[in-house]
Amino acid sequence: MTAAVRNPHPLEFLFHPRSIAVVGVSSNPDGFANLSFLQPLIDSRFPGPLYPVNPHGGVICGLKAYKSIREVPPPLDHVIVSIPKAFVPGVMTDCAAQGVRTVSMFTAGFADSGDESGRELGQQVLSIARSAGIRVIGPNCVGIYCPASGLSFNSALPRDGGGVAFISQSGRYAQEFAATGARRGLRFSKVISYGNASDLNESDFMDYLAHDPETRLAAAYIEGARDGRRLCEALGAASQRKPVLIVKGGSSPAGARTAATHTSSLAGSEALWDALFLQSRAGRAESLEDLMDAVLAFSLMKPPQGRGVAIIGGGGGASVLAADACTRAGLNIPELSLELQAKLRGTVPEAGTSVRNPVDFAPGMLFQPRLFSDTIRLSASSPDVHTLIVHVVLGIPGRADADMWEALTDAIVDAGKACGRPLMLVTGDADNPPALEVVASIRRKCNPAGFPAYATMGQAIRALSHVVKCYC
Amino acid sequence: MTAAVRNPHPLEFLFHPRSIAVVGVSSNPDGFANLSFLQPLIDSRFPGPLYPVNPHGGVICGLKAYKSIREVPPPLDHVIVSIPKAFVPGVMTDCAAQGVRTVSMFTAGFADSGDESGRELGQQVLSIARSAGIRVIGPNCVGIYCPASGLSFNSALPRDGGGVAFISQSGRYAQEFAATGARRGLRFSKVISYGNASDLNESDFMDYLAHDPETRLAAAYIEGARDGRRLCEALGAASQRKPVLIVKGGSSPAGARTAATHTSSLAGSEALWDALFLQSRAGRAESLEDLMDAVLAFSLMKPPQGRGVAIIGGGGGASVLAADACTRAGLNIPELSLELQAKLRGTVPEAGTSVRNPVDFAPGMLFQPRLFSDTIRLSASSPDVHTLIVHVVLGIPGRADADMWEALTDAIVDAGKACGRPLMLVTGDADNPPALEVVASIRRKCNPAGFPAYATMGQAIRALSHVVKCYC
Repeated sequence: MTAAVRNPHPLEFLFHPRSIAVVGVSSNPDGFANLSFLQPLIDSRFPGPLYPVNPHGGVICGLKAYKSIREVPPPLDHVIVSIPKAFVPGVMTDCAAQGVRTVSMFTAGFADSGDESGRELGQQVLSIARSAGIRVIGPNCVGIYCPASGLSFNSALPRDGGGVAFISQSGRYAQEFAATGARRGLRFSKVISYGNASDLNESDFMDYLAHDPETRLAAAYIEGARDGRRLCEALGAASQRKPVLIVKGGSSPAGARTAATHTSSLAGSEALWDALFLQSRAGRAESLEDLMDAVLAFSLMKPPQGRGVAIIGGGGGASVLAADACTRAGLNIPELSLELQAKLRGTVPEAGTSVRNPVDFAPGMLFQPRLFSDTIRLSASSPDVHTLIVHVVLGIPGRADADMWEALTDAIVDAGKACGRPLMLVTGDADNPPALEVVASIRRKCNPAGFPAYATMGQAIRALSHVVKCYC
Repeated sequence: MTAAVRNPHPLEFLFHPRSIAVVGVSSNPDGFANLSFLQPLIDSRFPGPLYPVNPHGGVICGLKAYKSIREVPPPLDHVIVSIPKAFVPGVMTDCAAQGVRTVSMFTAGFADSGDESGRELGQQVLSIARSAGIRVIGPNCVGIYCPASGLSFNSALPRDGGGVAFISQSGRYAQEFAATGARRGLRFSKVISYGNASDLNESDFMDYLAHDPETRLAAAYIEGARDGRRLCEALGAASQRKPVLIVKGGSSPAGARTAATHTSSLAGSEALWDALFLQSRAGRAESLEDLMDAVLAFSLMKPPQGRGVAIIGGGGGASVLAADACTRAGLNIPELSLELQAKLRGTVPEAGTSVRNPVDFAPGMLFQPRLFSDTIRLSASSPDVHTLIVHVVLGIPGRADADMWEALTDAIVDAGKACGRPLMLVTGDADNPPALEVVASIRRKCNPAGFPAYATMGQAIRALSHVVKCYC
């Protein structure tokens, strides 16, 4: 495990604990805290000592367990807490005695419970932490995934890192974004689930990400801003340096009251958030899926030089609706020049097709990779075309089709590389195992070439519109 | 094969040919017209005689082939044409001589080619048909799927029928809608691909569907209206009797110019179409995926009695964004009464959860089907809740999880049935084979109970908003 590039930011220490204790692990190997916190640290090969803490001691996940934090040999930098809330003040006092620097708290039911006793307990925990100089992540969070440092909250996540950061008030979203994103080809600098934000909050983390050289794109799921002005500054600082994309939860009254019980967040008025987005120039996504699609485009594709899109594929109806959807999304579908149309006519069979852009050809072209790649190259030669969206009909391929898809994907990748334009691929939904395998094989070829793949045209177009809004 | 219920409409004969010839089949069993037209008719057990037509005669798909239409023994009611366009006038003349009643024409390159010679050829073909009283479907189409009559354009489509009709100017969309819809649980009365609409057009088919007792819902992909007033009347007549949902292609200049080359359609102005939707009260979907999701909700669920939605599942962020998205879609998320919240508190573990609606509980509830179903029942007992949206985290289940999902699905289905409210299930994207199998097994249980399943919350909410717009 190589050490992460150090960020001069004061919060950099969060990502480099010398040792970690996990409080709340069980002698049952399938215990929640074992599977969710201790085992992932083992599997991601955290380089320092790991200390399971359980009142009965013993051996847990193959490691010597300690009966309390106080028994752990110093230095102890980081503690993960997953125990009933009533026990948390005691553990925090132990952490203070041990000189712990950060506590990541899964335990919930404090301010998020909505009742006075939970709120008071949270305050008590926080004041112990503050007097001891302990920084708290959470409560009500799954903490940090930072593969470069061997920090993880899920054993299935990749051990290699990348340039995407995601901070999230929702633990499930942090888990989903990391796991689904990894399967689609994203690699992460840091994923941080920060729950109630009782101490470290969205502004702290966004300010950190703004200055983090490992992070090339900062994404976030935020329910409430503890300090709107500070968040706006942090977002502004980040978006001057890298793409920033936010999903804001709680934009409706029903969403806002749910955010209050979820992470005790004050969602704030929509007008305020609109102003914040406008001023900070951070992009806004509507859902986690939308965010994921956009992040994939940002992190795989090189930036397009303009709003012009060529749509290339088989299917007249799909071409028509793609043109409509691009237009709605603020993209242009420039009509190709007559010369270019004439050249394309030499490639694309005539019947039931179009060469004006969208370039729509007969389904048989799927079996003629050379014609397909010629069409891509010719379409990309228009100076008004800045991005290519190529759509193929995945259908229900049998085994015999795997070769066809392989040849076709190679042709698309080669043509895309040759023409030097950003390219997105739309495959259609994969709802059966052979189709899944085809999509996986398409991704294995397209991702390294910088060409993201999407199931639907709508996903690709929404993702591209985020990219174009940021760069053009 | 039982005969379809007869519709008194004058176009009913289209769906009951006594015999069918397919012109353009090949001695190569993988020939396009063999696989696309002749074999599907054989596989769907069309009850009358089938006549392959090929200039060399012989035996094709196990059937005696005829060298021309003129050699086919009468009566010949229906002819499918898939040959180069130059030969079409000759075949149409033969059809006239044989007393053929309908021709479905896959051949393209007539008015859709955009050149004068193609347009003239199309006119010539049409005038032969008109003088002989032959009705034409297409050209540039894949024709009719009507399982009750044994008509089909795809061997993989189910032989059992249902209440959904779809008419489409795009052949690929007709294919996709039928195949994907069938896999998701839809069953069809008629799917009609009608391409250029040179003779029979959207108004003819919509008027037919309005009066078709087999059709309980009429969906369409339309690029242009040959006669706006007539289409408005037909849509109005249909939407008085059953839900009608349209995707309009060509709403942007780029989409419109593509529609012109795709099916030679004049897309018409957006203002005109807005008026047409308003006046006819037909619903409007934005994409084929959106249409599919909505049709699934219409055809599986019983109609909700209002706009109130309860959102039930594990994941605070997902609950917050679901509430926001429902609000944007014009749905209500009523806060549950304090009594009901108190009852739910007895069921839902406290920490990190909410019972106000959305009802958000800890992930562990997935393993406690009884608690899950109690939660559904209690939430549904609110008089302000008309539809339930239940979301589960599909994650990456291994084999060991199959039993858990089975028990959970049973609990959801039982609770949904017991409470008598429409219910939608959101599973998350299935991007690996075990997850696909879980989704398939969830559908096998939920579909018959009338509870449609969706991959994303956004899909479920958009679908529900179409349903609510129609009924509430």
